[in-house]
Amino acid sequence: MKAALYYARNDIRVEEFPNPKPGPEDVILKVDYCGICGTDLEEYRHGPILIPVDAPNPLTGVMAPLVLGHEFIGEVVEVGSRVTKYKVGDRLAPDVLLYCGECYWCKRHQVTMCDQMAALGLSGHGGLAQYCKAPVAMCIKVPDALRSDHAALAEPLAVAVRAVRKGRVQLGDVVAIFGGGTIGLLALQVARHAGAAAVYLVEPDPFRRKLALQLGAAGAIDPREGGAVEQLMAITCIGADVVIEATGVPTVVPQAIEATRKSGRVVLVGLPTGPSSFNFLSVVTTEKEIIGSLSHVYDEDFWAAVRMLADGRIEVDALISDRITLDDLIPRGLERLGQGRADVLKILVMPNA
Amino acid sequence: MKAALYYARNDIRVEEFPNPKPGPEDVILKVDYCGICGTDLEEYRHGPILIPVDAPNPLTGVMAPLVLGHEFIGEVVEVGSRVTKYKVGDRLAPDVLLYCGECYWCKRHQVTMCDQMAALGLSGHGGLAQYCKAPVAMCIKVPDALRSDHAALAEPLAVAVRAVRKGRVQLGDVVAIFGGGTIGLLALQVARHAGAAAVYLVEPDPFRRKLALQLGAAGAIDPREGGAVEQLMAITCIGADVVIEATGVPTVVPQAIEATRKSGRVVLVGLPTGPSSFNFLSVVTTEKEIIGSLSHVYDEDFWAAVRMLADGRIEVDALISDRITLDDLIPRGLERLGQGRADVLKILVMPNA
Repeated sequence: MKAALYYARNDIRVEEFPNPKPGPEDVILKVDYCGICGTDLEEYRHGPILIPVDAPNPLTGVMAPLVLGHEFIGEVVEVGSRVTKYKVGDRLAPDVLLYCGECYWCKRHQVTMCDQMAALGLSGHGGLAQYCKAPVAMCIKVPDALRSDHAALAEPLAVAVRAVRKGRVQLGDVVAIFGGGTIGLLALQVARHAGAAAVYLVEPDPFRRKLALQLGAAGAIDPREGGAVEQLMAITCIGADVVIEATGVPTVVPQAIEATRKSGRVVLVGLPTGPSSFNFLSVVTTEKEIIGSLSHVYDEDFWAAVRMLADGRIEVDALISDRITLDDLIPRGLERLGQGRADVLKILVMPNA
Repeated sequence: MKAALYYARNDIRVEEFPNPKPGPEDVILKVDYCGICGTDLEEYRHGPILIPVDAPNPLTGVMAPLVLGHEFIGEVVEVGSRVTKYKVGDRLAPDVLLYCGECYWCKRHQVTMCDQMAALGLSGHGGLAQYCKAPVAMCIKVPDALRSDHAALAEPLAVAVRAVRKGRVQLGDVVAIFGGGTIGLLALQVARHAGAAAVYLVEPDPFRRKLALQLGAAGAIDPREGGAVEQLMAITCIGADVVIEATGVPTVVPQAIEATRKSGRVVLVGLPTGPSSFNFLSVVTTEKEIIGSLSHVYDEDFWAAVRMLADGRIEVDALISDRITLDDLIPRGLERLGQGRADVLKILVMPNA
């Protein structure tokens, strides 16, 4: 089969690779769509970060060259000997996170904290290939009403669902989101469906600000026009009940904390790229909560994401910037994303097109 | 009457001051004991910080010279015209926090966030005097079984109660406390009564470490002997379920966060004296929560503190380093605390002795 293989930084090759064989509890999916994630770009440009290159990942037994891709959906073409839950022809969306099931965290059912946490497409072979092997226990059947290209956004949507849940967004809350990338624009929609009375997006790019307004934001704030915190305070008077930081920019994190109202919650979902200088005194005197949110959990966030996509309440067409073939992965996918163009959000790859 | 009056930095005078007169809903207390707080020392050495010196506090109408003291207990000697709840002779412990009742936060019943929050002894006249006026609504009757000197620790104990509650300490939790001052040593005991399986105290001073062990700590860690985080990780394997930061030292705050287990909670109750350099990435990837905890609330934390003192489960004698007269406030109180001697914890003043 054809697959996109990560060899090293700036060395991803689309080439022939052996077809996967299912273990007893695996399914083989013929991949319909696989999204390109910021993490993929990060591995391409600055990696390897998560991808094992020196020794096989202990959970998957896989090391580079490794098939990329962790946001995908496909159709079952083969099932393992003990698989009874799904059959050939079913469309499945796999939650790509793998955990050991043995460590302290798994035993506590906090599987995203697993000491050995792995992911298809980062520490095991992923979905940027014609075929992919996935554990049946992590697969969710895609409802008939849900288009495959939309279902490919279940993974990033699950990240947004978890962030909104961690922030305990409640009916009537005012929410502010820093960063209008895919996660930020999905979190905006999820927060509205969680009952937020008003969601404000802070984003320097006019294309993304306009998109946020189309997606239901009560306001879109240009942080270069007088300061994001100042503008949010002017609008909200007291700050936002919940702030979601989805940029990962070290200088933005303290702003996100500052824009939170007293005794409010700020969720950090963007991955900070370096240290911030921050005086925690303000957190003490205002009794704020700073909460980290990482990835998602299969039977909580991922299920919710698929359900919300299926009933049509999350607008994803506006976030899909292009649909490309696997051969175009580098020039029309990763390289284009690497240019940081504001009007390029999610690019979907069709490995079998 | 005789009172300790704050005039300016390094200028506190014990001198004659007019006796307070009660408003309709006030009581006048003859002060039995009043503790000296770290905040008092901070105002003495580096203030004025909270004490109004240029204009009267809008809530109390008071400005310097102002009677210090916010940890006190006394006996009712006079009641306002509309007071029916208490009578002359009752012993009362006032929660010293005053709030406006009108602002957004008060209307939400989050009175510790009041935009005008004030406190007897900092923005209104306090308890380092022979007599003090207190609003009846903020007073709790001291149970007969509770000694007055012990009751004087209700205020700092309420701070510790709030911190433990903010950390949601649960049955079986492992708790680590950074800082063995009065708040840290009270939080240690409160955490144990909240069900913690083991509480570890991090404290450089041997006197306070020994005291922590006497008060029930499972271990007392010297941070200079190989790093506090490393030692806590060696003991707990995964970090503490809940960490309480009670030093306020900017370099210690990141250590407290690091010593928290994945998806655990770190409560900041010490007041950081400056900015920290901190990479929030670790908070995202571990889904930790950083929670600020400030002061206490009358009908939650303060009540709990008085009840816990009354039934004898909190050891406070070991924390009371001395009982002095008001005339000795400067030499035997503030100056001695200012030397930072580890064996000096809480000094109680007896204004009527």
